[in-house]
Amino acid sequence: MKRSFIREILENINPNTISFAGGLPSANLFPLTQLEESSRKVLNDSSSLQYGTSSGYEKLKEKIAQLYTDDGFTTKPSNILITSGSQQALDIISRYYSNSSITIEKPSYLGAMNIFRLNNLDMQSISLNSSFYDKETFDNSIMDTKLAYLIPDFQNPTGFTYNSKQRKEISNTIKKNNAILIEDAPYSKLYFENEFESISKFLPNNSYHLGSFSKILSPGLRIGWIRASEDLLEPLIAYKEAMDLHTSTLGQHILNDYLENNENFNMHKEKIRRVYKKKLQIFTAYLNEILPEFIYEKPKGGMFIYGRLNHVNTSALVQKCLNKGVVFVPGNEFYDNNNNQSEIRFNFTHSTSSQIYNGLKLIKEIIKEGELCKAS
Amino acid sequence: MKRSFIREILENINPNTISFAGGLPSANLFPLTQLEESSRKVLNDSSSLQYGTSSGYEKLKEKIAQLYTDDGFTTKPSNILITSGSQQALDIISRYYSNSSITIEKPSYLGAMNIFRLNNLDMQSISLNSSFYDKETFDNSIMDTKLAYLIPDFQNPTGFTYNSKQRKEISNTIKKNNAILIEDAPYSKLYFENEFESISKFLPNNSYHLGSFSKILSPGLRIGWIRASEDLLEPLIAYKEAMDLHTSTLGQHILNDYLENNENFNMHKEKIRRVYKKKLQIFTAYLNEILPEFIYEKPKGGMFIYGRLNHVNTSALVQKCLNKGVVFVPGNEFYDNNNNQSEIRFNFTHSTSSQIYNGLKLIKEIIKEGELCKAS
Repeated sequence: MKRSFIREILENINPNTISFAGGLPSANLFPLTQLEESSRKVLNDSSSLQYGTSSGYEKLKEKIAQLYTDDGFTTKPSNILITSGSQQALDIISRYYSNSSITIEKPSYLGAMNIFRLNNLDMQSISLNSSFYDKETFDNSIMDTKLAYLIPDFQNPTGFTYNSKQRKEISNTIKKNNAILIEDAPYSKLYFENEFESISKFLPNNSYHLGSFSKILSPGLRIGWIRASEDLLEPLIAYKEAMDLHTSTLGQHILNDYLENNENFNMHKEKIRRVYKKKLQIFTAYLNEILPEFIYEKPKGGMFIYGRLNHVNTSALVQKCLNKGVVFVPGNEFYDNNNNQSEIRFNFTHSTSSQIYNGLKLIKEIIKEGELCKAS
Repeated sequence: MKRSFIREILENINPNTISFAGGLPSANLFPLTQLEESSRKVLNDSSSLQYGTSSGYEKLKEKIAQLYTDDGFTTKPSNILITSGSQQALDIISRYYSNSSITIEKPSYLGAMNIFRLNNLDMQSISLNSSFYDKETFDNSIMDTKLAYLIPDFQNPTGFTYNSKQRKEISNTIKKNNAILIEDAPYSKLYFENEFESISKFLPNNSYHLGSFSKILSPGLRIGWIRASEDLLEPLIAYKEAMDLHTSTLGQHILNDYLENNENFNMHKEKIRRVYKKKLQIFTAYLNEILPEFIYEKPKGGMFIYGRLNHVNTSALVQKCLNKGVVFVPGNEFYDNNNNQSEIRFNFTHSTSSQIYNGLKLIKEIIKEGELCKAS
């Protein structure tokens, strides 16, 4: 099995390298003090260190269910399965559907493609561009696969967001075919303009909605979840149990205590949106100034700017960049068949303003050198 | 897929039920104050909440490697892969060997059998009794499977411990066949008399040694590990990454800080051994007094007493016991083919002295009632 470019790179770069690679949240925004208070409280009680139930800590499931209900998507704790990050949620679900086929976006999240491959799911891809998905291919594919994996909000890697009309279309297609949607929504609360309704809301019995605290609170907690009907969720609990018994009790208890103060969490999410929106503005301003040849559409949320550098092999470029202390992910990594040449995904949430400036300057220089070499 | 009897029961019993079922550590022994101090310290640093490396937190890997080296089994951090409990370690390894065959003990840990089944490993069982394993069958089986899964210390469920001669025999057989040993060792530090050398120590390049903090510190942290040669470990990292990216950063940082004080940890392990040894004495004294018909061998460590009640169907018995407020695991659950009638596994570490007394009294009454019914 192949490792992810991003994770292998991240683990081996020198700490001074400017990284536009991973989907890393800005560490400055972690609510350290509040989580420390919560950990102090829950570590008064030995149940925080004991074995827990496979589907997750009941009180935390209640709070997650309430977040959906508050959004107008009626949800009970029995609709929630807590997972060790939403990466594990993808593994659990695709293990359950192993040896079948699945409709995915092209390009898509490479961690999902990896786990689909491991579980022997045959992937059928539908193209995305900055304003539409290929509806005809999607409709045809879903008739065959009966299972789709989509990232409708600020998609990874493209930043593409399905509009209301497209969400309705997709839910209708899923319903008509009695198919199942896996809706991966780690970025859904990172909107800079307006929030969209989840597609799963229109498909309460035909969907797995995947959520995570990684992008809105802390990835180090490794806590995500699956929201599904009890019928869909029930068989997954046996898989979760076989895979790691249950998610960290301590992590769940700390998180549950933190979420007791709903206002804190809401303020935190607003702050993240404000800061990330600002970072996006800075990144795009520098992009336009330093790399005007980079063709992209400004995303409306999330963590990524996606685009292309015509006539540049970005997989070759990133190797040179690595030597000079800057890194991004070449588009190739997000294609099942690795046939993309010139696309790039930039993460805009992790780096500081001066890192963004210096990193883009470095990339520009390396591109220029490449051209000089070609010309000579 | 079937859920584990133990976990399904544990999740549904009323809180007043006396449980001799799960392998639960005594919650009174968790070092709450010290872990709280550690969590306070690490939550001063945002890296405790950020993404981490797939193979685990480097400093924690160093400390785990040192524990082996201190035991005379030279180990480097690059020989360690941190997992979300040793349950996940079993999943990672058996996923890597999926669709092959494996030699296991009969009876064996049901969580292992479950994950072997999920990964389509054909299980060949070798019988255990209280003082020997079936060497001839083992030797023949390993020639065929080239892969063995053993729990050599205070085995789950039987409490059986391989003696030094048997350990040498097994390592020789593994070597001779160029086979691989998966040595599951969650109870190895829970010895009440003397400690044995791990079999893996004689097979540094042909073994996965699985460790866990669940039984010696806290199961709620969900932190275990695999110790193996770099060659064996390297391909597993890609699986770990695909499965949940990495184990909780916060949990790993807290644990790492706790382990900085080696003396604390050693004292803690000594305390656990002392308390559990005492609990074993209490449990066996009550067993001999209340249920003298229960035939068992006193274990020399671990968490379980295993034995049989001749002419009693213990799977039927446990259902009646559940209604009366006491629970254990019937032996049947630990056999791949579910053909065992009269065996029982009692956990002796979790209950208080009066719970042990009352629980055994209840079981005795229920057995008596059963006999009266049969006679009438």
